[in-house]
Amino acid sequence: MKMVDVGEKPKTGRVAVATALLRMLPDTRERILAGKVEKGDVLAAARLAGIMAAKRTPDFVPLCHPIALSGVEVTLAPEDAGLRVRVQVKTVDRTGVEMEALTAACAAALTVYDMCKSVDRGMVLDAVQLEHKSGGRSGTWQREE
Amino acid sequence: MKMVDVGEKPKTGRVAVATALLRMLPDTRERILAGKVEKGDVLAAARLAGIMAAKRTPDFVPLCHPIALSGVEVTLAPEDAGLRVRVQVKTVDRTGVEMEALTAACAAALTVYDMCKSVDRGMVLDAVQLEHKSGGRSGTWQREE
Amino acid sequence: MKMVDVGEKPKTGRVAVATALLRMLPDTRERILAGKVEKGDVLAAARLAGIMAAKRTPDFVPLCHPIALSGVEVTLAPEDAGLRVRVQVKTVDRTGVEMEALTAACAAALTVYDMCKSVDRGMVLDAVQLEHKSGGRSGTWQREE
Amino acid sequence: MKMVDVGEKPKTGRVAVATALLRMLPDTRERILAGKVEKGDVLAAARLAGIMAAKRTPDFVPLCHPIALSGVEVTLAPEDAGLRVRVQVKTVDRTGVEMEALTAACAAALTVYDMCKSVDRGMVLDAVQLEHKSGGRSGTWQREE
Amino acid sequence: MKMVDVGEKPKTGRVAVATALLRMLPDTRERILAGKVEKGDVLAAARLAGIMAAKRTPDFVPLCHPIALSGVEVTLAPEDAGLRVRVQVKTVDRTGVEMEALTAACAAALTVYDMCKSVDRGMVLDAVQLEHKSGGRSGTWQREE
Amino acid sequence: MKMVDVGEKPKTGRVAVATALLRMLPDTRERILAGKVEKGDVLAAARLAGIMAAKRTPDFVPLCHPIALSGVEVTLAPEDAGLRVRVQVKTVDRTGVEMEALTAACAAALTVYDMCKSVDRGMVLDAVQLEHKSGGRSGTWQREE
Repeated sequence: MKMVDVGEKPKTGRVAVATALLRMLPDTRERILAGKVEKGDVLAAARLAGIMAAKRTPDFVPLCHPIALSGVEVTLAPEDAGLRVRVQVKTVDRTGVEMEALTAACAAALTVYDMCKSVDRGMVLDAVQLEHKSGGRSGTWQREE
Repeated sequence: MKMVDVGEKPKTGRVAVATALLRMLPDTRERILAGKVEKGDVLAAARLAGIMAAKRTPDFVPLCHPIALSGVEVTLAPEDAGLRVRVQVKTVDRTGVEMEALTAACAAALTVYDMCKSVDRGMVLDAVQLEHKSGGRSGTWQREE
Repeated sequence: MKMVDVGEKPKTGRVAVATALLRMLPDTRERILAGKVEKGDVLAAARLAGIMAAKRTPDFVPLCHPIALSGVEVTLAPEDAGLRVRVQVKTVDRTGVEMEALTAACAAALTVYDMCKSVDRGMVLDAVQLEHKSGGRSGTWQREE
Repeated sequence: MKMVDVGEKPKTGRVAVATALLRMLPDTRERILAGKVEKGDVLAAARLAGIMAAKRTPDFVPLCHPIALSGVEVTLAPEDAGLRVRVQVKTVDRTGVEMEALTAACAAALTVYDMCKSVDRGMVLDAVQLEHKSGGRSGTWQREE
Repeated sequence: MKMVDVGEKPKTGRVAVATALLRMLPDTRERILAGKVEKGDVLAAARLAGIMAAKRTPDFVPLCHPIALSGVEVTLAPEDAGLRVRVQVKTVDRTGVEMEALTAACAAALTVYDMCKSVDRGMVLDAVQLEHKSGGRSGTWQREE
Repeated sequence: MKMVDVGEKPKTGRVAVATALLRMLPDTRERILAGKVEKGDVLAAARLAGIMAAKRTPDFVPLCHPIALSGVEVTLAPEDAGLRVRVQVKTVDRTGVEMEALTAACAAALTVYDMCKSVDRGMVLDAVQLEHKSGGRSGTWQREE
C-alpha cells in the first residue's frame, strides 16, 4: 500500500467533473424545490457540503494526495427521477481531482438524503460517476454517451 | 438551518445497514480479487476507509449529530457487475446511524475507484441505499424487494 | 496544562447561548439580505458554518472536552450596525457548551466576512459574548443588561 | 455557492495581520499574566491554538481555499481593557490569508476565555478585525485609524 | 477488518497511563528546561499537543472507537537521558483509553522533536508503553518492573 | 511560539526516512504474519494508518507547516524482537518532511498495538527515529550506525 510519488510530475491545470443522481419520491423533490423541508434550505446545504467535502478528500480516500484545490462548484438540478448533482473541481497541481469531484458529489447527495430522510427513507443514490477530466499526463477523458 | 435537538430522546441501541454497488469491468474486478492492483490491497483499504469515514460523518454531512459509534463492519463481495459494499453500523445513542452507514459505503467504494482508476476510469457507483434500520422512536425500517 | 477531569460530574441537560455583532457598511448588509452576493447565499452558508464549527470546537479550543451536542441553532438578524449572530447549543453531558456556542458564533460571522470581504474589507466582529448558560453544577448564568 | 476559481492567479507573497481585543476583569488579566490560572499557561495555549486554527481555516470557513501557509505568528499583549491578540500570517499562494489571520485571532481569544471562564464568564471578544493585507491582485489594504 | 461492537459493554470509569522517553543530547535538554529554544516554550507546546492528539486518536488509529474523554493530563520530566513523557487519560465509556494515552505520548514527544530538531536531529523516541490501565471487563493491568 | 516563516525558501525535492521498532511477544508476531488476528489484516491496516497520519501531521504536531506530500510509503518487516516499521515521505516544498515520516511511523506502530493489545498489552514502541533526510538548505543528514 502506498501513496505513489508524484513529485516528478509537473504542476498543470486540471479539471474534473463528476455527477450523481439522487432518486427520490416526486413529493420529496417538490418539497425541496419549494423550500419546505423542516431542517432548512436543502440545496444550499448540499452545495456547501460538497465544497467542504472536496477539501477533505484526502481524509476520506486514504491514498489520495493532499492537493491545493483552486476552485469547486456544485450544482443540483431537478429531474423526473430526483436531483442531479454536478461537481466541477479545478486545480493546478501534480495530480488530478477526480476523487475530489466524486467525493463532493457523494457528500452533496448524502446531505440531501440526511435532511429529507424522515419523509423519504428509500431514496437511492445512483450513477455517481466521472464525466470528464482534463490536464496532466493522461490527458483528457470524456465519458461516452 | 439547524441541527435538531435530540436531547429529549432516550439512548437506545440502533443499527443501520447500507449497501452500494461499484460497477466495473470484469477485468478490474478480477485484478482486485487476485490482489494484483499496483497500489496495494484494495479490499483491505476499502474496508478501512469505510470504517474511518463512518467516524468522520459529522464532518461530511453538515447537520449530522456527532455520535459514539459502538461498532462498524464493512464487507465487499464480488458480483457479476462489480463489487457490492455492505456496511453495518451500531450505536447506543439518541439518534440513528443511517448517515454513518451510507457515508462509509461511499468511502469504501470511492477508495476502490481511486486505487483502480488508472485502469478503469469509467466505473460507476450505483445503488447507494439504506437497507435496514432499527432502534429509536421511528422503529424498524426495511427496504422492500 | 490539562484537560480537567469531569468524569465524576453527572450528565445533565445544558444550554448555552452566545451572540456576536458583525459590523458592516449598510450597503453590504443590503446586498446580503437581497441575496446579491456573488459567492452565493451568505446567510445559509453562515448558519451551516456555525453548526459545523460547533461540532469541531474540541479541535479549535485545545482544552475543550469532546462532547455529544444534542442540538445547535444559528440565526442571523439584521441591525442598523450590521448582522447579529445568535447561537444556541444544547447537550446532555458532563460539561457545558459555552465554548461551542462562542466558536459557532465566530465561524458564522467569519463566513459572512469571507463571502463579502471583496466589497467591505473593513467589517469588524464585535461583542462575541456568552448571553446565557444553564445546567450543570455551576447553574444558570445570565448576562446582565 | 462556489469556491471561486483562483487557478489563473499567480502565486505571490502575501501577508495578513488581524487583531482582536478580549475584554476581561482586571483581576483576570493579572492572574493570566502572573501565571496563576489553574488550567495552565494561558498565553502559551492561546498562541498555539491560534497557530493550529490558522491551519484549519478551510474546515472552519466553508468557501476558503486550502492554502500552504508559510508562517504564522500570534502574540498577546495586556491592555487596560484586557488582552490584545495580534496574528500575522504569511503565504506564497494564489489567494490571501485574511481569513486565516482572523480565524487564528478568534481561536487564540476563545482559548483564553475557555481557560478563565470559571472565574470571569462575562469576558467579551471585541474588535476582531483585519489590520493589514498585502500581496495579490488587490494589493495592499491598511485599516485607517 | 472491523471496529468491534462494544454496544453491549457497560459504561464504566476507565484510566490509562502511558509513558515514553525522548532521548536527546544533554545540551538540548538544558536548552528546553531553560526556555531557550528559538521556536518557543517547548514543554507547554508538548503538553498541549498531547492533549489535542488524545482527542484525535480515532482519526489516527483506524479501528479505535470515538469516545468521550473526561480528562487528559500530560507531564514531561527531565531525566539523564532526556525527557520522560507521562500521559494519563480518563473516561467513563464502553472501551478503554490505552490508545489515547499512547497517541498523546507520541504527539507530545514528536512536538519536542519538531521544536528542537534543528539543533539535535538524532533524538530517539524510546519506550512508548502502557504503564497501567484500569476499568472495564478486562480489569486492571499494571506493567511489571 | 510561532510557525517560522519559510516563504523565502525555494521549493525543492525532499525525502525523509524514519523507522521504529514495535517489540512484542514472538507469538504475537507470528499471529500477525499468519493473518490470524481477530480484528483483521494488521499489516494492511498499519500501512494505511501510516499513510493517512502522514497527511494529518500538521494537526498532530502544532508548529508543523502544512505541506503537499508527493509520496508516502510504509513497510513493516518482522525481526526477532517484533516488527520494524519504515516510512519514506517525499515532497517538493519549502520545508522538510521529517515530522511526517516520524508521525507515520508512530501511527503505523500504534495501529498494530491497537489490533493486538488484547493478547499482548505489554508491547513497547522503541527506536522511533529519523534515518535520513535530504533536500533543502540544511542538506543531507544520515544517522550514523
